[in-house]
Amino acid sequence: MAKTSLALSRVYQLLEPGPVVLVTTANRARANVMTLSWHMMMEFEPPLVGCVLSARNYSFSLLSESRECVINIPTRELAAQVVACGNTSGRRRDKFAAFGLAPTPAKCVLPPLIRECYASLECRVVDRRMAGRYNMFVLEVVKAWLDRAVARPRTIHHMGRGAFMVAGQVIHLPSRKK
Amino acid sequence: MAKTSLALSRVYQLLEPGPVVLVTTANRARANVMTLSWHMMMEFEPPLVGCVLSARNYSFSLLSESRECVINIPTRELAAQVVACGNTSGRRRDKFAAFGLAPTPAKCVLPPLIRECYASLECRVVDRRMAGRYNMFVLEVVKAWLDRAVARPRTIHHMGRGAFMVAGQVIHLPSRKK
Repeated sequence: MAKTSLALSRVYQLLEPGPVVLVTTANRARANVMTLSWHMMMEFEPPLVGCVLSARNYSFSLLSESRECVINIPTRELAAQVVACGNTSGRRRDKFAAFGLAPTPAKCVLPPLIRECYASLECRVVDRRMAGRYNMFVLEVVKAWLDRAVARPRTIHHMGRGAFMVAGQVIHLPSRKK
Repeated sequence: MAKTSLALSRVYQLLEPGPVVLVTTANRARANVMTLSWHMMMEFEPPLVGCVLSARNYSFSLLSESRECVINIPTRELAAQVVACGNTSGRRRDKFAAFGLAPTPAKCVLPPLIRECYASLECRVVDRRMAGRYNMFVLEVVKAWLDRAVARPRTIHHMGRGAFMVAGQVIHLPSRKK
């Protein structure tokens, strides 16, 4: 995937449709990746993203400590890896190697981009006050990457119990809104 | 739409794919409806849903005051109404009448279900502490309704600037997770 920079003002267009994402985290020793569907936009620019992840996850402690992550958006071709990342803990396993995902250096944060994903959003935690009660973090997207050669990304959308909806046709309606 | 009760434990299957929703609110005098894409699951059961809406919206004040709403999930057939609800304020206009949406009584809350939507989730606000800083409310779904005759709901997913992705095919992968 040949990703180039995307204006931060357009990040909402990637996340609002509700794709499953692969979130990478890291400390100085190693990186990890988890599957996540519990995210939402909270502000357009700078883009703020809320996300909730189980406190039992290894990624939760990495994110709490490092306060950085990358939200990577996979497509249909990566569905098997997405499920595998969701079913496996990275505490004692390198999921990148195990599932054939290539970590590549980010520009502003320590956790890696995932080469096979068509979009990647480098994020910093800006609010942890909801982490105790709701396992929720507020992230600010500080750098966004998009492979514009992927004209119609077939993102996948979790429906539970192993079922995923694949992004279908795009329709256009006159709108006065963003 | 002939909606019947849905187990609260399955609500996440409706919201995780990221559909645009129509949120109804009400006070004793009147009801309103708005279009919303900024929502996420926060807990499975009882289902908690986070949502962010602009404080400039009439629905924001109705939700702040009444602490109740209904999340209604529309499909492709309602796309024009979804955009119209997003482009119009209900402060001085009855959007139900204007756009041909039929309000029907909810069971546990004052705001109405929307008859034309295939699923409706009756919600109560359980946390307003993030409303000041992030315009965010935490909702608990107290009653869920689903029209099971809609076998493959073609939900619509906001991509910005009048573009929407329509739900495509559903794929199944072996998964150990919910």
